[in-house]
Order: sequence, then C-alpha cells, then structure tokens
Amino acid sequence: CVFILSMRSMASKTPVGFVGLGNMGSPMAKNLLKNGYPVIATDVFPESCKELQETGAQVVDSPAEVAEKADRIITMLPSSPNVKEVYTGPNGILKKVKKGTLLIDSSTIDPAVSKEMAIAAEKMGAVFMDAPVSGGVGAANMAKLTFMVGGVEEEYHAAQELLTCMGANVVYCGQVGTGQAAKICNNMLLAIGMIGTAETMNLGIRLGLDPKLLAKILNMSSGRCWSSDTYNPVPGVMEGVPSANNYQGGFGTTLMAKDLGLAQTTATNTKTPIPLGSLAHQIFRVMCSRGYANKDFSSVFQFLREEEGQ
Amino acid sequence: CVFILSMRSMASKTPVGFVGLGNMGSPMAKNLLKNGYPVIATDVFPESCKELQETGAQVVDSPAEVAEKADRIITMLPSSPNVKEVYTGPNGILKKVKKGTLLIDSSTIDPAVSKEMAIAAEKMGAVFMDAPVSGGVGAANMAKLTFMVGGVEEEYHAAQELLTCMGANVVYCGQVGTGQAAKICNNMLLAIGMIGTAETMNLGIRLGLDPKLLAKILNMSSGRCWSSDTYNPVPGVMEGVPSANNYQGGFGTTLMAKDLGLAQTTATNTKTPIPLGSLAHQIFRVMCSRGYANKDFSSVFQFLREEEGQ
Amino acid sequence: CVFILSMRSMASKTPVGFVGLGNMGSPMAKNLLKNGYPVIATDVFPESCKELQETGAQVVDSPAEVAEKADRIITMLPSSPNVKEVYTGPNGILKKVKKGTLLIDSSTIDPAVSKEMAIAAEKMGAVFMDAPVSGGVGAANMAKLTFMVGGVEEEYHAAQELLTCMGANVVYCGQVGTGQAAKICNNMLLAIGMIGTAETMNLGIRLGLDPKLLAKILNMSSGRCWSSDTYNPVPGVMEGVPSANNYQGGFGTTLMAKDLGLAQTTATNTKTPIPLGSLAHQIFRVMCSRGYANKDFSSVFQFLREEEGQ
Amino acid sequence: CVFILSMRSMASKTPVGFVGLGNMGSPMAKNLLKNGYPVIATDVFPESCKELQETGAQVVDSPAEVAEKADRIITMLPSSPNVKEVYTGPNGILKKVKKGTLLIDSSTIDPAVSKEMAIAAEKMGAVFMDAPVSGGVGAANMAKLTFMVGGVEEEYHAAQELLTCMGANVVYCGQVGTGQAAKICNNMLLAIGMIGTAETMNLGIRLGLDPKLLAKILNMSSGRCWSSDTYNPVPGVMEGVPSANNYQGGFGTTLMAKDLGLAQTTATNTKTPIPLGSLAHQIFRVMCSRGYANKDFSSVFQFLREEEGQ
Repeated sequence: CVFILSMRSMASKTPVGFVGLGNMGSPMAKNLLKNGYPVIATDVFPESCKELQETGAQVVDSPAEVAEKADRIITMLPSSPNVKEVYTGPNGILKKVKKGTLLIDSSTIDPAVSKEMAIAAEKMGAVFMDAPVSGGVGAANMAKLTFMVGGVEEEYHAAQELLTCMGANVVYCGQVGTGQAAKICNNMLLAIGMIGTAETMNLGIRLGLDPKLLAKILNMSSGRCWSSDTYNPVPGVMEGVPSANNYQGGFGTTLMAKDLGLAQTTATNTKTPIPLGSLAHQIFRVMCSRGYANKDFSSVFQFLREEEGQ
Repeated sequence: CVFILSMRSMASKTPVGFVGLGNMGSPMAKNLLKNGYPVIATDVFPESCKELQETGAQVVDSPAEVAEKADRIITMLPSSPNVKEVYTGPNGILKKVKKGTLLIDSSTIDPAVSKEMAIAAEKMGAVFMDAPVSGGVGAANMAKLTFMVGGVEEEYHAAQELLTCMGANVVYCGQVGTGQAAKICNNMLLAIGMIGTAETMNLGIRLGLDPKLLAKILNMSSGRCWSSDTYNPVPGVMEGVPSANNYQGGFGTTLMAKDLGLAQTTATNTKTPIPLGSLAHQIFRVMCSRGYANKDFSSVFQFLREEEGQ
Repeated sequence: CVFILSMRSMASKTPVGFVGLGNMGSPMAKNLLKNGYPVIATDVFPESCKELQETGAQVVDSPAEVAEKADRIITMLPSSPNVKEVYTGPNGILKKVKKGTLLIDSSTIDPAVSKEMAIAAEKMGAVFMDAPVSGGVGAANMAKLTFMVGGVEEEYHAAQELLTCMGANVVYCGQVGTGQAAKICNNMLLAIGMIGTAETMNLGIRLGLDPKLLAKILNMSSGRCWSSDTYNPVPGVMEGVPSANNYQGGFGTTLMAKDLGLAQTTATNTKTPIPLGSLAHQIFRVMCSRGYANKDFSSVFQFLREEEGQ
Repeated sequence: CVFILSMRSMASKTPVGFVGLGNMGSPMAKNLLKNGYPVIATDVFPESCKELQETGAQVVDSPAEVAEKADRIITMLPSSPNVKEVYTGPNGILKKVKKGTLLIDSSTIDPAVSKEMAIAAEKMGAVFMDAPVSGGVGAANMAKLTFMVGGVEEEYHAAQELLTCMGANVVYCGQVGTGQAAKICNNMLLAIGMIGTAETMNLGIRLGLDPKLLAKILNMSSGRCWSSDTYNPVPGVMEGVPSANNYQGGFGTTLMAKDLGLAQTTATNTKTPIPLGSLAHQIFRVMCSRGYANKDFSSVFQFLREEEGQ
C-alpha cells in the first residue's frame, strides 16, 4: 500500500477527478485546470457539466466513471445524503475506485458521515480525507479558500498539493472528520458572535450610543470579535460588508442555519451541551421562515430591530 | 455657572472627594494621592477608611461632609441602591453639595439611575457624570483602568484630568448614562463570546480536535474573539489567564452575572430583544447557584464539560 | 388603629374611590356602582371620566381629592411609574389619605413597588394591598375577574367585600407583593406553556401528525397544559379561541411581553435563574418588533411557522 | 398479501417473537406470556434471556432465528443503531423474515429510522409499525403502558391485539413514524412544562409565596400543566411523586435528554424552529454532566435552586 500511494503522489499532473460542479465546485475545478491538471468531472446537472467542459475538462456520466479514470478525486456536494450517494451509491465512486486512490471531500457535512465514508473507502483500498472550506464563491474564484483537512497524516501532503491550487490556506486538523469538526466549530462561534454583536449594537443604540463609537469601544475592549471588527452588522458602521449593501451577498442565513444544524447534530450525538449554539441555530431557523433565508446572516441585526412605526 | 465651573477647572490640586473605598475604590483613591491631589474620603466600613487615612487621605464621616469640603467628587459603589443613598440619602452628597461641583460616579449601575442622579445634581447646581471602568483590581492598582464617560461634553476635560490619574484610557461616550451603556454593552458581548468559546472548544475537543490547534484555527478565522485569542477558557491553551490557574483571579462569575442583570434590565426597559444576552445571564446565574460564584467567569468551560466518570 | 379599621369595615356602601378608568378600570368601577357603592373616581383622560360620570359616579380632579372623600380606594393603572405617581406624586393619594383608609391596587406591577407603596401608606396610617387580576376586558365586564391579593391578613376580608363585586375568584396569597408574585408566576408559566405548545404542534404537523389528533394525544398525556387543552394556538383545533379568529381578541403579545418583563426584573433582583422564562420574554419581544404586538399571544404559532412559498 | 395477512391475524395465540429484554422489554414479554401467547425471545445479554426463559419463554440465539419461528415480532431496544442492527444487521430479523410478518417496534427512535425500517421490511413482504410507549417500568409491569402506533391502518387491529396485553391505551397516530412523532412531541412539551414549572415555583418561593398555595393558584389558572398539577417538582407540594422521594424513581434525566435529542434531530431535519425545546434539551444535557443523570427529570427544580450557604 505504501508503494502504491507513493506512486500516486509522484504522479503530479495526472488527471484529477471532480464531482459536484455547483457555485463552489465549478470555480474550484477551474483553478485545477488553470494549474495544469487535467480534470475529469461529473455533476447531476448537465448545464454545470457543459460549462466546465468548455473550459477544458473531460465530462463523464457518473462518479463511478470518474473513479475509473482518476486516482485523485475531489468532491464538493451540498449535504450528507449527496455525499453518501456519490461515494456509496449504485453509480458511486467506490463501485469503481482503484486501490490507492486519494479521495478528498470538500463538502460541509456531519463528521460522522466523513468517518463512514473513510471506512468504506479503506475497504476498497482507497484513502478518504475530509477538507471542507471556509470562504465563499468569491474566494473560490480567486483560489483564496481555506481548507481544513482531516485524515491520515501520511496522505496530507498529497492532498495539500491539490488544495493549494484552490486555496490560500490549508490546515491539517487531525484524523478523519476533524476538518469538518473545525469548520463546524468555527461557524458555530461565528454565529454566536454575530447574533451577540447584533443584540449588543442594537441595545447600545437604544441606550443613546452612536453605533460607530460603540463599535470602536467594543473593538478596543473585551467585547471585540470578528463580527464587531471585520463584518459589523449595523448599516453605516463599515464599508464593503453586506450590512452596507442591504445584506446582499455574503453568507446566506440559510447556509448558516445548515451549518448550525450540523453543529447541533454533532453536539447531540456527543452529548455536548451547546446552549448558545442551539439558540443561535433556532434564531437563524426562525429568520429563514420570516423571509431572511437569502440575506446575509448579519441581517440578524435587522431582524431584531424594532420595526418602523412601532 | 460658566464662571464657577471654570474656576473649579483651574483649581487643580485642590482637594478631591472620594466615596467608596472597596477593592476598586481604595487603589483608585491612592492613585489620586500619588498624583498630588489631597483626598477627602469616606466609606461605610471604618476599616477601609483607616487604611486610606494611613496613606495620607483625610477621612470624614459622611458623603455630605465630603461635599462640604471638595468640589470634585468621585464615587465608586457596588450597585444602584448604594449610589442613590450616597447621592440622595439623608447624609448624601446632594444635601451639602456646592454649586458647580463635579460629581463623577465610577460605579457600574443602571444608566437610568445615572440619569436620575444627573437630574437631581442639576437641581442643586452640580454636574453629574457617569464613568464606569473596565479592568479589575490589578488595573486599578496600576492606574491602567479604562473609563467610559457619559455627561455634558463641556465638563469632559475636567473629568479627564482626574480620571487619567487612575486609568490608561478615558473614552467619551456621549450624554449622561452612555458610559454605563458602553460598559454594559461590552460586558454583554464579552459574556456571549466567552460562553460561545467555551461551548465551541468543548464541542471541538469531543469531536477529536486538539484544543490548541482549534484555538489557532478559530483565531485565524471568523470565529475569532477576545475570549478565544486573549483569555481562552480551556486549561492548557494559554498561559497567564485564569484558565491556567484553576479559574482563580480574573473577573468573578457573580460580577458578570450582576452586569448581565443590568443589561437585562436596560433591555427590558427599552423593549430591546437580547436573546443570547438573556441566556448568557441565566447561565451565569445558574453557575452562581452551583458553586462558581467566585471563580473567574471563564470557568463556564468547566461548568459545561462532562464530569469525570460519567 | 384597630378601632378605626373596624369602623371602616362596617361602613359598607359608603363611597369607594377609584383611580384609573381604562379598558379594565372602567367596567370594574361600573360593577361597584351596580352593587350599590357610590363611586368617587378620577383619571388623567377626561373622556374616561365623563363616561363613568354618566353611569353615576362622582368625578374629581386628582387622586388626592379621591383620598379626601373615600376611605376605601381601588387603583387600576398601566405600570409601576403610574402607580408611584398616583400614590406618592404631588397630587397623589398619600398627600390627603385619611388614617385607616384601605388602598387596593389592582395594577400589574413589580412587587417591589407594591412593597414600597405599602411602606409609604403605613407611614400615613393607611393600609395598602396589591390585588392584580387575571382575566381580560370581557371578564371585567361580567365581574368574572380573578383577584390575587397580597397584604396584611386582617384586612383581607374588607378587601374581599369590594373585590367580589368585580370578580368571581378572590385568592389571598400572603404578605404585600405576593398578589403580584402570583400573577407574574402564573403568566410566566403560561407564556412558556404557550410557546412550548406552539413549537410542539408545529413539529408534530411537520412530522405528519394531524393537529387535532396531536392535541388529543397531548391532552391525555403528560404534555397536557392549559395552552394545549383550553387555548390551543393552532387554527382548526378548537373553536372560540383567538387561533380560530386570526388571533384577534384575547391577550395581546405586547401585554404578555410586559408581564414577562416584570418576571425578568423580579428574577434578576432575587437572583433567580429563569432560563425558559427569559427566552419566552425574548421571543414575545421579537414578535412585538415583527408586527405581532396587538395579536393574541397564541400567534406565536404563526410566528414560528414556515412562510408560504419557502 | 391480503390473504396472508388475514391468516396471520386470525392466528391468535400462535407464538409471538420478542427482541430486547431490558427493563421495559422483559415485563412486556411477561405480560404476553400471562395472556397465553407463547413467546420466542432473544437479547444480547444472556442474563436477560435466562430470566425470561424461567418464566416460560423459548429463547433463541438471534433476531433472525426469532423471525424464522414467529410471524408477529415485537422489538424494544435502546436507540436507533440497535434497531438498525436488529432489523437489518447480519443476524437481523429481515434476513429470515417470513412474508406477511407483522413487525412492531416499541423503541423510542428517530421517526426517519422507523420509515427506513418500514421500507426495508416492505421489500421482504413484511409489515413494520412503530409503537413507542409512554409510562415507565412500573406501567410496563402492570400492563398500563400507552402505545402510540404508526403504520398502515389495515394492520392496526392486528397490532392492537398484542399491544392491549401490555398497555392500557393504544392510540393510532397515522402513517409509519407518527407513533414516534407523537411520543417525541409529548415528551418535548413535557420537558418544557417541567422546567417552566420548576422555574416558576422557584421564583414564586423567592418572592414570598408558599409553594403549596402557588401550586394551587397555578392549577386553577392558565399556568396549569401536568408538571404543576400531577408531578410537581417541589418537595412538600405533593405526595407519591419523585420530588417527595429525593427525585428517585420516575423518569431519569438522561432518558429525557435522549428524547429531547430526538426532538432536536427531527426538528433540524424538518427545519422546524423549536427555541424552548432546544433550550430544554441543553438544560437537561448540562444536568447530566453535573450529576443529575439518574435522578428524575423533575430534579431540575433542585438544579436551578440556589445552594445552601450562598
């Protein structure tokens, strides 16, 4: 096995498989092409395939076929059931995977599913790593994503070779599933910090403080956080952030609600109390049902404010 | 009135009154003495008075007597009722206050009470400002406190002259009560960030992440906050913080619960929703009833962890 | 004093004072008139006074004047500051109150304020009792209110004589302030039960259960509560409740938010943790800012439901 | 298929299979024996099997073997993974199940897993129903359980025949999974009502109310719920409940936390906001980590109370 793996590691610029050509996957695959890697790709939507084909990728019909033709495969899919289907479904990667193949899943999913996939891959002689990203479509286009990678350490360098074509930071987190864990943890704390900042700014404004001054005070004090100093949710405090643009762009509330759902599920399964994380989840969930699903998650400031005319 | 006020402003090194010689007030008064100001002080506890007397202060019997002898007075008291008593009680400052006296209250209290005191002071021809501090006993000793000041802007420089003897930062926040507002807002966001960090670190550890690595990832990402990068609640992640010393020292859970009580009261009175702030309040309140009252508030990490042997 | 009090108790059908002729106070005063008591009334709105005058009451200019003419006075006011003003303000009851007068406050306020008023009344030789009501305008009209009474037990019967003219149930709760405490406690548990019922019904419906069947199952099981079996928030489950009438009528969300604010304040002041009560408060507060202020509080079901078209 | 099914339905007093002989399953199986049904049973713990064998059951080695010998099988297992293993594992029921067999699962699990099992059973020509119970070991012994049944309506009567031997109430809830849904919903509302009652009683006591009187007032008012009127969590208010016996017996906090975990998972999966349900889950989870795992869940009253000596 060591021999097979090292053969593959040396085989730079041999074809790389790519499954999942959505808003994120498509620019990621293009960045592999730009770096000189032949790409063999597939997606359930023919439109997405066609677009990538025009950029130079070879398009095939199924994940299984990708696995026949590439011994390094990246997957970027919306959620756990899609990952299960693409790996272990009837036309899945593991139906045709070659021994020693490196499988890198950049989807954000339950780490328990990552572990399942790793075990299933190992049975076929392949190696599975989870490598979810932070950064949105803009970062994907500019190859500025951050990858958080979980899996056997010996394979990390082989993964890094590909991931650096698509991202600015690649962080090794530990065993399989810890990449997901790191992403979920970061986003849970981000969600808590954002709602906390929105509540705090709103309270301060009602108590007579100028919002810019309040932000300045928080940012030089122990209330400081990323949501207060880099992505402030109050219109007028900062430029170039979604709050300055009616909460368009950025990271949608529905996506944050999804990640908090994963945080909740992993916390429930590991019997970990997350009181603020749970409440943050519920708040973004209610927002989704009140028309905020597609606004940036910092619109929680708007959601909590008193309506005009009250 | 302008004339009287400007006389007082010029009167540097004339006596300064000080009411409230507790853990914070005592070192603050000493720093005024060190800066060459005669201090006329009082406190309900004779022991506290005696100690300051030995350092050179003149001790008198009541706040009213302080007001007779000083036209700049600083108060540092535990809570709203004490402030009401010291200003408007039968032996209170306002019974004997001279026209033009500058009254600076550094207690952390409800901003509505600050406004009441300001109105009462104004009726007597005096000026009241709120100037609560951040920083604990250590910062008070080393004259490194931060003062957040609310009150009429014309008086701010007169206040600043004294406050800089006791603190490293003096921030003007706006009208009376906004100093309190700024402090309450900061501490509410701090509390939310700390519990959020504790939950997140605990979840990450249970999911197999190394705590130092997780802290590093959060601190380079959008989960970053003061509690994760400067005051991490997980033993072993940082040195020189309470989590490295069994949660001794620092900012007691009971004090944080008090400040969150103020945040809750001001939010209730202004009809401001603070879902995470409210829950943070409740969590620290439960901790107080479970034996954590005098531990640093970062001990919420310990509170949320599963017990050994479960 | 015993002598004076017993004189007053015997003095049935002597005039009764009434301060506060709003939606609740007006029908309550009318019920006293119907029972043969002369009523001497006042209110800050002349319109309200005029209407009651037409029903036979004598209208005077101030609470102080009411106190001059009646030795039993009932007050029904919106909130704590109004109560303070009416009792201890410059034209307040206590300015002219006669020794031995019985003062019954039916407002829903902070029990700490009730205690303050009781002390102030005692100094004037009068007796203050708190007697907040449950039941809305309909119950007030039909003399079907429930009164929860706090105050010295010896005076309870004198209070009961009047309260039974306006209510169907009069419950003695203990020392001054316990009437308020009982009302606040009941409404907090009601709020929690209502939100809990709304969440539960919504979850069950999404999981495929028929709402009527689910309500039936809950009501024969340990999930049973007043909100599930008497005031179900799901349209179509019950008749004659606000959920059957687009959440009109009933108990407005803004009134529930006010009562939860009192619960929060008393809990903060007594250092009592109320995690669900606090969160319920925040939810109704958010609802008020999202357009639900004047709908019945059971509209929380509607608030939590997913929007059409999502 | 209709023919096969009706044959089985007529076949009363033919053997009934039973898998899972724990605290609940064992007395349930005994009640089938008492009603004259031969029982063919298995469990992973030989001790449990031995005990039932002595009562007259035939013990076999695996769920598959049970399926060979019985065309009506009841399963009572701790959690979703056990149910998957017993039905679809290598020695599982579905390996040997006969066409037309009626499979009744009384475990409390995720309704999504119930649906999976129903589909897997249908592929083998068998019928799966979920029938979780409410009521504890005492009710199981006395055949006083309540069964909430989900599955095809035509099979309900066949299931009812067996379930009435073990329970006092059998309620048909709808399609497969709705039995679980009903149980989860009930227990979520129960959990909310219990914590709400504990908070409310604690607050009332601190405000000076006698606990028995407060319970009486709540129970005649809109705060009434099962936890206040049937299972009050405050020692001294009622007899014959766990709060009267140091919170021993009853329904363990860890079991409630498990059910709330299921509620959370189904809510997350159906994107249903459950703010109070989530917080209740977190509170019981924290209690489990603070030493309350095996106390009755009404011990939340004790958990929230201030400690002696504070």
